Amino acid sequence: MIQGYDPRTGQPAGDPVPETDGAQVDAIAEAAAAACVPWEQVGAAGRAAALEAVASALDGATEELVTAADTETALGTARLTGEVARATGQLRHFAAVLADGGYADAVVSPGGDGVPGLRRVNRPIGPVAVFAASNFPFAFSVAGNDTASALAAGCPVVVKAHEGHPRTSVLTARIVAEALAGAGAPAGTFAVVFGVEAGVRLLKHPAIAAAGFTGSARGGLALAAICAQRPVPIPFFGELGSVNPVVILPGAAAARPGDIASGYAASLTLGVGQFCTNPGLLFVPAAGERLLPEIAAAVQSSSGGPMLTARIHDAFSAAVTELGARSDLSGLAEGQPGQGPWSATPAVYQVSLAEFAAGLPGLAQERFGPVGLVITYPSVADLLPVLARLGGNLAGVVFNGWPTGVVVTSAQHHGGPWPASTAPAYTSVGAAAIRRWLVPVAYQDFPARLLPAALGHGG
Amino acid sequence: MIQGYDPRTGQPAGDPVPETDGAQVDAIAEAAAAACVPWEQVGAAGRAAALEAVASALDGATEELVTAADTETALGTARLTGEVARATGQLRHFAAVLADGGYADAVVSPGGDGVPGLRRVNRPIGPVAVFAASNFPFAFSVAGNDTASALAAGCPVVVKAHEGHPRTSVLTARIVAEALAGAGAPAGTFAVVFGVEAGVRLLKHPAIAAAGFTGSARGGLALAAICAQRPVPIPFFGELGSVNPVVILPGAAAARPGDIASGYAASLTLGVGQFCTNPGLLFVPAAGERLLPEIAAAVQSSSGGPMLTARIHDAFSAAVTELGARSDLSGLAEGQPGQGPWSATPAVYQVSLAEFAAGLPGLAQERFGPVGLVITYPSVADLLPVLARLGGNLAGVVFNGWPTGVVVTSAQHHGGPWPASTAPAYTSVGAAAIRRWLVPVAYQDFPARLLPAALGHGG
Repeated sequence: MIQGYDPRTGQPAGDPVPETDGAQVDAIAEAAAAACVPWEQVGAAGRAAALEAVASALDGATEELVTAADTETALGTARLTGEVARATGQLRHFAAVLADGGYADAVVSPGGDGVPGLRRVNRPIGPVAVFAASNFPFAFSVAGNDTASALAAGCPVVVKAHEGHPRTSVLTARIVAEALAGAGAPAGTFAVVFGVEAGVRLLKHPAIAAAGFTGSARGGLALAAICAQRPVPIPFFGELGSVNPVVILPGAAAARPGDIASGYAASLTLGVGQFCTNPGLLFVPAAGERLLPEIAAAVQSSSGGPMLTARIHDAFSAAVTELGARSDLSGLAEGQPGQGPWSATPAVYQVSLAEFAAGLPGLAQERFGPVGLVITYPSVADLLPVLARLGGNLAGVVFNGWPTGVVVTSAQHHGGPWPASTAPAYTSVGAAAIRRWLVPVAYQDFPARLLPAALGHGG
Repeated sequence: MIQGYDPRTGQPAGDPVPETDGAQVDAIAEAAAAACVPWEQVGAAGRAAALEAVASALDGATEELVTAADTETALGTARLTGEVARATGQLRHFAAVLADGGYADAVVSPGGDGVPGLRRVNRPIGPVAVFAASNFPFAFSVAGNDTASALAAGCPVVVKAHEGHPRTSVLTARIVAEALAGAGAPAGTFAVVFGVEAGVRLLKHPAIAAAGFTGSARGGLALAAICAQRPVPIPFFGELGSVNPVVILPGAAAARPGDIASGYAASLTLGVGQFCTNPGLLFVPAAGERLLPEIAAAVQSSSGGPMLTARIHDAFSAAVTELGARSDLSGLAEGQPGQGPWSATPAVYQVSLAEFAAGLPGLAQERFGPVGLVITYPSVADLLPVLARLGGNLAGVVFNGWPTGVVVTSAQHHGGPWPASTAPAYTSVGAAAIRRWLVPVAYQDFPARLLPAALGHGG
């Protein structure tokens, strides 16, 4: 059984949800396989309408969804209300992507003079397994961006729910399934499974053609290995850890230390620091004497709060304890503690660039939660080679802004070199996220009547 | 030492080429890493000019190249002259891709009203390791399509030469390196290493960011595992085995058995059957009584020839021996034997659909060389579920044509589901092949003067 907990008290919240057993997982995967052809044949317009229907149904249930999720995540009703809107916005974004048609990447090379004619178009890869995230119970969970983009691509979806919000997942799944059925999606187009064993069995099932994951590097690596070692390996799109380095240049540090300090503290502690784009590393000029006290003051006045799960809280506590015990770091500031047994207190440590460099790669690993390193650098010339030694990150090219807050647009790329993701050419946010679930097929000298719709079917 | 052989005699041909030792591999990989920034900064127009220069240099050396390759591969001067032209055509194709600019996939989401503006563009992934193929000494080797597409993308390239044609590789590499240097490419942009150990060391080197491979499923799997198990895993694009099923429908079998039979025999024996698009499986109607004797006659009048290497010849011989020993198959026809110790004789076996299905997946595995299975099916309705059980293939959607002969155009997709390739969303032929070596970067609220050229640099 999967038992949800109230992070504010550490006590069980709501009835437990049964784990999906092996036979159920197999039946769900086979139903997804059977839905492949009919779901593709619903067509782009039909799938767009189905995504709109799901969005409307979720919007209509916002209050109920937020109540369930707030109990299980303690993220607060304001944030969660906004997150439902983000999730439904993502569903509508992919309806618009389908209407635009560019995702199909349809290309015609006419041939002639003895050269064969080719018509290429993207088609759905097949049933997709989606592993939901802890920290976004709506936007990257049962009805999140992986689900929205895979359904848009024409792929049936089976979500492995996150253990951190089982009741929210059950509720969301019911709403999504009803809305899809009402919009004419074939049986098997969408399902949710519960439990780690169910997730692993799902990933190994021959019917599954690709998988998406948002979570820790450790969990993602384990699932990536399963995908690579299947008799038929499948693509795995994992969005893993990121420390999202932020550099404060000397001019900015001198000109607006107060704004930078308050922006940093807000970004570091947003959602109790439980963001993949949390600014884990802040590089500041060693000569920027006004900035450090401003940062200390801003962090001291920030507040902690309950973390999502006991496991996340324990990992955060261990990471802070480890940092506190190091002789190469000094504590710069602590924020106000939150309430309850799983609460995190914001903490920032200070280290010189030289000592930071000596502590690589360990010092640059992700610590999920409101904890940051402030690294003081003597000069930009000294800084550049150290930045070059950092691993891949999700956010690193934001100008005069903070990495938290990832917009959903066509130009978004929320991905990055290892270890930020397992597939650096792909994004998990924005219109291009659909590309993960598509494979090109080129048709040579095919008559128009036998081609898929995007290539002239019926023409 | 890497010793080339003349397949027509099985005797050593030319001086052996020294294996690249570990220190040399490391130095080459580090030089490639150092070339990343300057090669990208050469810009799309500069790289296009460099590719054109390489193409012209190779064209000018065609006779010398063909002589070297014919000695080492026995593919014949006509085929090899055409293949040099194909390789230089590919280089020019990517010059045109750069001129077009669409490969950059530049997208602008302007933002405004508090929403950040994003500009996304594809950038080179970093130094690429290319593992050359045995069966295309020019088009998929030192100066082949992987090299052309990676150089176009802005990636330095290190080729691991194939053992089957070392002198051809040395000669090609010298021409490519001189042409690139003459066109202003920075040192380290291109190099070749020799030897299996050198190839593995190259693949494990931290400077290498991605790898391309054309060859056997066994070799590709071993290299894919190395890529996945590096401390920093890298994308691996392997084009592996394929049996390229061809279905003859009842109407065609009745209407033009002679054309089909001669087309099949020609496709099966082209280049001594050493093509990734060789028609390994031919499904014909059981009632098509005129077709089988026509196929037998066409195959009987076809000719074998020397295979590329002793290893390829031994694997082919073993595969034919194994097929001949099976009680579920019957021999349909044998062609004329070729000359020399490594020669292959075309051979076609016949099997009923039911027995073929019972022998899956083993019967559908790739057998590199001029050997095919003709499967007689009772009806299209019986055939479809058996086709659905076949693995992924490079060619399967060619209408009224044979799979050998892969055109180089924007709409080409030369890839496929496992085991045809390790990355079904990518192609190794055609304009889209450049996508393997590119990663998107999104710039948030960046000033135009700091953006890459494709996004408004200098604007």
